[in-house]
Parts: sequence; C-alpha cells; structure tokens
Amino acid sequence: MPELAYVNGEMLALDEAKISVLDRGFLFADGVYEVVTVLGGGLVDFSAHMARLERSLAEIGMAWPAPPERIADLHRRLLERSRLDEGYIYLQVTRGAAAARDFLPQQETEPSLVMFTCAKTVADVPAARDGIAVASVPDLRWVRRDIKSVGLLAQVLAKREAHGRGCQEAWMVQDGMVTEGGSSTAFIVCGREIVTRQNSTAILPGCTRRAVQALAEERGVDVEERPFSIAEAQAADEAFLTSATNLVMPVVRIDGQAIRDGRPGPLTLRLRQIYLEFARESALQEARAAGRGA
Amino acid sequence: MPELAYVNGEMLALDEAKISVLDRGFLFADGVYEVVTVLGGGLVDFSAHMARLERSLAEIGMAWPAPPERIADLHRRLLERSRLDEGYIYLQVTRGAAAARDFLPQQETEPSLVMFTCAKTVADVPAARDGIAVASVPDLRWVRRDIKSVGLLAQVLAKREAHGRGCQEAWMVQDGMVTEGGSSTAFIVCGREIVTRQNSTAILPGCTRRAVQALAEERGVDVEERPFSIAEAQAADEAFLTSATNLVMPVVRIDGQAIRDGRPGPLTLRLRQIYLEFARESALQEARAAGRGA
Repeated sequence: MPELAYVNGEMLALDEAKISVLDRGFLFADGVYEVVTVLGGGLVDFSAHMARLERSLAEIGMAWPAPPERIADLHRRLLERSRLDEGYIYLQVTRGAAAARDFLPQQETEPSLVMFTCAKTVADVPAARDGIAVASVPDLRWVRRDIKSVGLLAQVLAKREAHGRGCQEAWMVQDGMVTEGGSSTAFIVCGREIVTRQNSTAILPGCTRRAVQALAEERGVDVEERPFSIAEAQAADEAFLTSATNLVMPVVRIDGQAIRDGRPGPLTLRLRQIYLEFARESALQEARAAGRGA
Repeated sequence: MPELAYVNGEMLALDEAKISVLDRGFLFADGVYEVVTVLGGGLVDFSAHMARLERSLAEIGMAWPAPPERIADLHRRLLERSRLDEGYIYLQVTRGAAAARDFLPQQETEPSLVMFTCAKTVADVPAARDGIAVASVPDLRWVRRDIKSVGLLAQVLAKREAHGRGCQEAWMVQDGMVTEGGSSTAFIVCGREIVTRQNSTAILPGCTRRAVQALAEERGVDVEERPFSIAEAQAADEAFLTSATNLVMPVVRIDGQAIRDGRPGPLTLRLRQIYLEFARESALQEARAAGRGA
C-alpha cells in the first residue's frame, strides 16, 4: 500500500502530492507541524499533539486551518484508506500561498493543510535493544524553540554533523548545557532520579516527554527538571531520549564515551516498556472512540 | 504577461508551478535563496548574487544544483520569455525531495531548483520620495544569519509586528544594538559619515549594502562599520535601508519618532540616485554580455 497524502482538500498518493512554490511553507518556513505515531492502526496520545498544534498556531498568529474535529477526522480517514498499522501521520499547516511572494502575510490567504502517512517500524527496532550514540553540537536555533515550526535547518545541520561523527542523534548545547536533541528530548538517569530540562522557550514541549514524565512519577520515580551538561550526561547512570517515533530510546554513547558499560540502562528499558504499553492503550482507546475498532 | 516559473527542468506559469510536499524546502526549510533585481530588462549586480548563492550553498553543505553558467542562462531565459522589464527574479535551491521525510539528508537526493519572475516597480516608487517608518523588534533569529536560508519565520513575525504598528519594515535588535532589517540592511548617517553594522554571522552580507558602501567610498563619503542602537538611529541626521528590491530607501520614522524633520535626508537621496545609476548600468552591461541588447 503506497503512502497516502492529503493536500488542501484532496487525497492522493504521496509521491504525487504537490504544493504551490508560492506556499509560505516553502518560501518562508511560515508553518508548523506535528507527527502522530500510529501503533496497531490507532493514533498515539492524539489529544496531546492536537493541543500542541493549537499552541504552535496561536504563537505564530494563525487559527486552525479547519475545525479540530475535521483534522481528527482526516487523520482517521488517512489511517483507514492507507491501512497503516505502524508508523506515523505527519501534519503541516502553513500560512498558504498568496499570489506573489511577500514576507508580510496577507489576511485573505487561505492556510495550507498537508498530511501524509509513513509506514515505519516503531516498537520493535534493534536500536531500542542496542541503544544509540549521540554527538554534542552547538545549538544554533532561533529563540522560540517552543514553537514546532518547520524552520528546521539548524536541526538538519546538527543531525548531519552527528551522522558524520557516526552518531544517530545530535544533542544541542547552549551555554554549556544540553537543550535537547535534534528531534527528541534528552534525559539522564542519576540513581533513582530522572533528569530532563524544564520546558521554556529554549526547547520544544515534547508530548512523549510529558507522558514519560507522568508515567515515571506515577510509579514513584522522581523527575527533576533542570539543565545538565554533556560531562554530567557522560557520567550519569543511564541516558535516553524521547520522541513520538523513537518512543523511549536508550543512549549508550555520548561524544564517543560509553555511558557505564555501554549498554541500555535498566530504568530506561523499563520506561520504554511502560511507555509502549501506554502508547498501545492510548492508540486502542482512540481507535475505539473513533468507531474504527482497531 | 503572467509570471513565469522554472521548476526542476520545466518552465511554466507561476500559478501552476508546484513542488513535492516531500521537498526539504517545504518540510525543513533546508534551502537557500537569492533575489536578483531586474531593471530595463537586465539583471542588477548579478555576479554578486551568484557569489553569495555559492557561499550559502557551501555553508549548508550543498553543491551548485546546476553549473553557474546554466543558472545564469535560466535567468536570461526567464527574462526573455516573460519580457520582464522591471521587478525581480527569485531563485531557491533546496536539498530536494527524498522518498520519505527524514531530517538527515540522503546523498542520492537531487537538489531542487525553483525560480520565478515578479513584475514590480522598483525605481519610481512613492516610498522613495516620502520615506518609510520602521519599528524595532527583538531579533529572534538563529545564529547563522549570514546564510541566506529560507528559514524566515522570525523575519515574517518581525514584519507582521512592524506592520501592526503601522510600519513598513522591522529593525531587529539584539543586545541593545540593531542587527538589520527584516529583509534589508540598516544604515544611519551621522554628519558626513554613514554607519552600518559590520558583516558577521549576525547579519546577512547584503549585495546592495556592499555596492552602496563602495559607491559612497568612491565619492569620498566615509563608511564606518559598527553596530548602533535604536536611540542613536533616532538621533541621527538621516537613516535608510538597502535591499535588492528597495535599492536605497529613506527611513524617516523609528518607533514613532521622526528622524530630524521627518523627511528623507539629502545624502540618502543622493545615494539612492547613485545606486540607481549603478544598478541600471550593471543591468545594461549584463544584458549586453548575454547578447540580449536590453
């Protein structure tokens, strides 16, 4: 089954999905996005992603491109028509295509709504058993990282540098402290405590971060919110990252130095299992609520 | 004559020009751009824009999407087929469309090259006689503003805020000093001296800025390169901005305060005239070299 896309009212094969070159997403990165993970044919933690989308839109001065119920319905229709079982649905809203290029948005321009499916193994990935390596890079991004905008060139360059150093993710560093990963939230484990940076304009408020934090606290694991350095992470008991499609992913090496024995830590693996159960249940509930069974 | 576009090998009407939703320009702002002004059917200061494009590409780790001679030829073909006399040609290069969305660029992905014409009055505009108002806003941009990337959301938000305050341009301020305009270089005049911020990663190296600086110095006008504050600009003898399509544009009001009598300054108007002569001559020479007459 090929990937399916939705572009401004039309459903079509992803490889045929196009947008005007005048779209402000293409010309100005004037847009925001979300990635909702699909497990067992259902949407994971859907309401959290829609709440963050609403916030991102408001922060750049945009309204919903369609009523939230319609956007939820489009997710469900894409799932049904693509028969996607595991992977994600990508959604991007931009300030649309005006008749000519102008930095200043025009009131009358209709926003663009683009969505597409992506089949991808999320749960049973080798990296979750072996862990991944991360490289630290300077955080070059703009001031408003709390907005999930498509202005992602700094992250692309960070990932590119990390890849060149044999790593699967970049941890971005500002003023000596880790902000977050190129497309993930950074965590370390110190004893029985989990440490992750507090939400602010310096990082994206991660949906998976939020769920993992709540799940950990429910199980009596303390979560301390504060910045940490690369040296502190290298000396930690465990390290991991979270993101919609990586779930909870063990980090076993930072800038070439192994964390402890270089194997995924026990609390990390337990949190991945706990989060995966939450994610599956969340997807099941969403599918049931939408009357799709699952 | 409708605007013409070139998209990856095809020439077509701009309103029909489309790009894949998987294009990295749309998904990640993973691309760079140039705007070349057209006067009298010729290209203004073309080699300066191509030199900056080469630099932007190199800084994000990209090669030319086609040989520079081919890109020059495409500019000329767009000019000929559109019969554009005055306006600009927009050019954007992105890291192309891979089969799936991935932050990490894939080696095999072909870059995208998109160009289009825009008819626009550049020389004889009322704003050049009356001057424009600017509003100061915080500079929210990333660290590498010397790269002319399409990651322009901070500038869009800056222009939007300035517009809401009745102004035509935003001057972005960091650490108490003006960096540059939302899409222009900021200048003030103090006595017989012109002041503009020195090139660094904090600002884009403006092509018009460079030409105006050289033209001023040839005529014995000193150009001091240093940052200045909004208060200093408000107290200056004159203020102006430069950009490819604004040429030299008088600034007569900053954050509601008039510069001197609130009229364009004499040195500013003289520099606009001098630059316009240079621009027309440059376009004529380019057209002649290309064998187009003009």
